[in-house]
Amino acid sequence: MQKLISLMFALLLGLSSIAQDEYLNAEAEKSDKIYPGGEAYDVTIFPQKFRGKTPKNIILMISDGMGLTHLNAALVANKGQLFLRNFHHIGFAETQSANKYTTDSSAAGTAIATGVRTNNGALGVDPDNNPVKSILEDAEGKGLATGLVSTSAITHATPASFIAHQPKRNMYEEIAADFLSTDIDVFIGGGCDHFTERKDGRNLVKELKKKEYKVEQDINKIEKVKKGKLAGLTAPVHNPAMPERGDMLPKATKTAVNILDNNKKGFFLMVEGSQVDWGGHAGSTVEVVQEMLDFDRAVGKALEFASKNRETLVIVTADHETGGMAILDGNFETGMVKGEFSTGSHTGIMVPILSWGPGAEEFTGFMKNTDIHDRMKKLLLGE
Amino acid sequence: MQKLISLMFALLLGLSSIAQDEYLNAEAEKSDKIYPGGEAYDVTIFPQKFRGKTPKNIILMISDGMGLTHLNAALVANKGQLFLRNFHHIGFAETQSANKYTTDSSAAGTAIATGVRTNNGALGVDPDNNPVKSILEDAEGKGLATGLVSTSAITHATPASFIAHQPKRNMYEEIAADFLSTDIDVFIGGGCDHFTERKDGRNLVKELKKKEYKVEQDINKIEKVKKGKLAGLTAPVHNPAMPERGDMLPKATKTAVNILDNNKKGFFLMVEGSQVDWGGHAGSTVEVVQEMLDFDRAVGKALEFASKNRETLVIVTADHETGGMAILDGNFETGMVKGEFSTGSHTGIMVPILSWGPGAEEFTGFMKNTDIHDRMKKLLLGE
Repeated sequence: MQKLISLMFALLLGLSSIAQDEYLNAEAEKSDKIYPGGEAYDVTIFPQKFRGKTPKNIILMISDGMGLTHLNAALVANKGQLFLRNFHHIGFAETQSANKYTTDSSAAGTAIATGVRTNNGALGVDPDNNPVKSILEDAEGKGLATGLVSTSAITHATPASFIAHQPKRNMYEEIAADFLSTDIDVFIGGGCDHFTERKDGRNLVKELKKKEYKVEQDINKIEKVKKGKLAGLTAPVHNPAMPERGDMLPKATKTAVNILDNNKKGFFLMVEGSQVDWGGHAGSTVEVVQEMLDFDRAVGKALEFASKNRETLVIVTADHETGGMAILDGNFETGMVKGEFSTGSHTGIMVPILSWGPGAEEFTGFMKNTDIHDRMKKLLLGE
Repeated sequence: MQKLISLMFALLLGLSSIAQDEYLNAEAEKSDKIYPGGEAYDVTIFPQKFRGKTPKNIILMISDGMGLTHLNAALVANKGQLFLRNFHHIGFAETQSANKYTTDSSAAGTAIATGVRTNNGALGVDPDNNPVKSILEDAEGKGLATGLVSTSAITHATPASFIAHQPKRNMYEEIAADFLSTDIDVFIGGGCDHFTERKDGRNLVKELKKKEYKVEQDINKIEKVKKGKLAGLTAPVHNPAMPERGDMLPKATKTAVNILDNNKKGFFLMVEGSQVDWGGHAGSTVEVVQEMLDFDRAVGKALEFASKNRETLVIVTADHETGGMAILDGNFETGMVKGEFSTGSHTGIMVPILSWGPGAEEFTGFMKNTDIHDRMKKLLLGE
């Protein structure tokens, strides 16, 4: 009997301690859901004056996991101003993959890069695993300069969609090798290990150097490169999150744009703010806001170039939304944002497309993510 | 001892039955969060050919509580097609009120109707309770025809914002009396009791008839009215929800447009799909979808007129988002949508603005909800 009573007490105690833990976890989670606000940075409003109706250059900027809410959270956090507020042409992209309502980043990246919807997890191939050409490869083929910039490993799903052709997104070493199969001019991101610590024994950094790439790991050295081919491998795998990452993304964006602009035929550059998605997965408003503000500053660098150049189309979009994020409260004066998340996964809601520059009017209204590829290609390559 | 054991068993049983009940409630809630899909209606794609650059008429359509997600849920439910997909000009409106980050419908309605941000709960007055003129009143003053259509009581916050001036949105009888102070040509919605069952003993239906209004309660009689002044009071307070309401809103929209079009100077009409908001408050995907599809069919009626007329600007927006809605799963083939809600209240996220017709390009990019008023007024009244 004594034992039975003890057992039942233990059970009751156990139940109440589970409840206690859940409460504590909920509290811990909650604090991360409130971005407390802070100092806002100033943004420039750029004049909408362009040369001609078709762009010589395209800078495609993908904020991985950015729904309208993530953008809005950043807008409140920066007290009502963002470089993204420069954009007057707005559309929505439906993000579904070939086999799922809710896409992953590799299928979504492939849709935007190639115009082909593939199965979740596949990269630069159609649903039957046949390679499909990306706009970066097409631009390269026509003699334009090309580049990729990312805060994740450069071999990660989104940047990889523009250059690799593999049945699975986690084939990082095969993806790294695919960088050697093109003549991409500039790539900057993490993922150094996938180039050097390989099962096949190849050292792709050596091979890159043979192909006349400058290979650098330090962003402060990277930003000094003004011409030629550049492989910036800034981390063994992924770059750290904000604020630890500093201004790696804005600096990398500016560096890539300036190098690519040496090509008189024009260029195609994709820049990814990779870790907004990870903030969404973590259900962290703080992380979402910090990564979105970093992405926005990179957008500022792109617009700064484009406003002088006047022949550059800047397109900002996302591959999908992450977290089913909502904003429960905010304050435009302090920058406080209180977010909430319906899921730890991706969701299937349409993502915003913001465009700025010659051809921007082609990206308004409702479209599929594959239309972004088709319209970019028509504008940049005339086909 | 026996008693102690009984007590502890009872406690355990109690705990497990609470858990059981929560589970059951969660399930009940869950079923409402999934719209199962069904037959889709066909939509027309209207040509974007307009006369001139400024509109003769404006039809402003407000889906109360519609965030991007609610629109997206309807798009999936109708298997990828919506009348709303006709809109190529897209913007976002910041919805904050004078005193709160998260607005209510009366402050948001007042902002859109008058261009003035007021405190939550106030209607057609500034934060100091001074009356401010609405675009409907300004249009009326310039000799244009004017109208209001709503699926709630016509005295409810959103329609009332365009015609009433009261410190509190729940002063329904005072609001009803405000309808008599203008020369509005057509209004159709619920709220009959606020005109007839009044503490002050006035019978406003009699007064309306003296002012030469046709007063009707049956939507089938209402839709036969082709000219003159019309007060359609279709329910004692609010109209029923969908599907019980039938096609009251599309019919009322078509009727109002046709009557107002008799005025050769042009017209201003506001149409509200009121109950999308209530679906958001209830956390019901089913209700959100049914109300959004009804609203979309009303948009179809507006576009049908506008595409023939070619001098009509149709603007679709929301006053605020309700529910912090996310879409966790969906199926474009069956129309199934699985929603989730972060709150039972409104949220402060930007709402979409979709425009179609001459002047539509003025409503793209990021703006405040008050800008909608200012730009409509400039286009319609030249000031």
